[in-house]
Amino acid sequence: MSNRIITISREFGSGGRTVGKLVAEKLGIPCYDQEIIQKIAQESGYCEDFVADRSEHASRGNWFMSAFGGKDYYGNSIQDKLWVAQLKAIVEVANKSDCVIVGRCADFILKEAADCIRVFIHADTADKAKRIVEQYGESEQTPERRLKEKDKRRAAYYQLYTDHKWGDLKNYDITLSTSSLGIEKCADIIVELYKAK
Amino acid sequence: MSNRIITISREFGSGGRTVGKLVAEKLGIPCYDQEIIQKIAQESGYCEDFVADRSEHASRGNWFMSAFGGKDYYGNSIQDKLWVAQLKAIVEVANKSDCVIVGRCADFILKEAADCIRVFIHADTADKAKRIVEQYGESEQTPERRLKEKDKRRAAYYQLYTDHKWGDLKNYDITLSTSSLGIEKCADIIVELYKAK
Repeated sequence: MSNRIITISREFGSGGRTVGKLVAEKLGIPCYDQEIIQKIAQESGYCEDFVADRSEHASRGNWFMSAFGGKDYYGNSIQDKLWVAQLKAIVEVANKSDCVIVGRCADFILKEAADCIRVFIHADTADKAKRIVEQYGESEQTPERRLKEKDKRRAAYYQLYTDHKWGDLKNYDITLSTSSLGIEKCADIIVELYKAK
Repeated sequence: MSNRIITISREFGSGGRTVGKLVAEKLGIPCYDQEIIQKIAQESGYCEDFVADRSEHASRGNWFMSAFGGKDYYGNSIQDKLWVAQLKAIVEVANKSDCVIVGRCADFILKEAADCIRVFIHADTADKAKRIVEQYGESEQTPERRLKEKDKRRAAYYQLYTDHKWGDLKNYDITLSTSSLGIEKCADIIVELYKAK
């Protein structure tokens, strides 16, 4: 695989998705985010909402039971099936052309196979809390609680399927704080890296 | 404090010191590394070798005992005295002009006081092992063991005096892998950040 792929892992509310879109726009290459979910849904036969909730996060309930319980005739859990569909979807888009892929363990999946720039985007809690309320509205839970839960589920999922720690700087070529540097500057740095690497 | 300070925290053998020097050279500003040790030695009255070993690392022996044992008339341990001298030295150089400061918890010490760009430099173990053998020669211990011990001591020291986790990406505006990006590119990214921030 000779394409150059930028993978964006991100904390919930950090603006990582926006950074990814901006990078793709500046470079004139596709950014895959929601499209990956559609592909996984097509491949697995599950509906998009279900895939969106399960293709990157440990489930809300008893994650251990839902991951390993409810296995099909061949001993595969729903989560395992989604993981296989996800692998296929990620490799398929990475094979097409240079692109940006947001989340979904793409950094791990493509690490050895492609010319990857592995990015992690984070931010201060106050900024993340403000962003999720602006973007997704209020909810019964406090924004801080929502941030914590979502990232906890992402971390559990990542750990289970990659055996690596999500958000450990060792797994990324570069990590950037949008609170310190701003969305635009983060995007510019990644664009420069893509051009220079 | 209106000066712009670049703090470089780094894994042992990652090339972080070289990155720091290169950044300072490109920007025409001072890079403080060994000079901080001289200042701490002058301030505390201990010799430079002793300061070099103790001003950034937990000691090799029983760190807990050596940090809290051997207190002076006022109840201060040697380690505490060095920490106070280190605080003074870091603030003194940061007050002089824009500069790069390598290691010695400068990221934490100056976080609130100065306009800081907090950088963490890391690398793959194989690259770090190669670099320390080239730079410091062979020793009885394997390079991997030396890397592990030095970073463990740095992490313990950082945790004790800052109550933060050394190498946690949340503490840095940007983290960079010299294995992925190379020394020169890491320096260029930091230079750009300094100019743009």
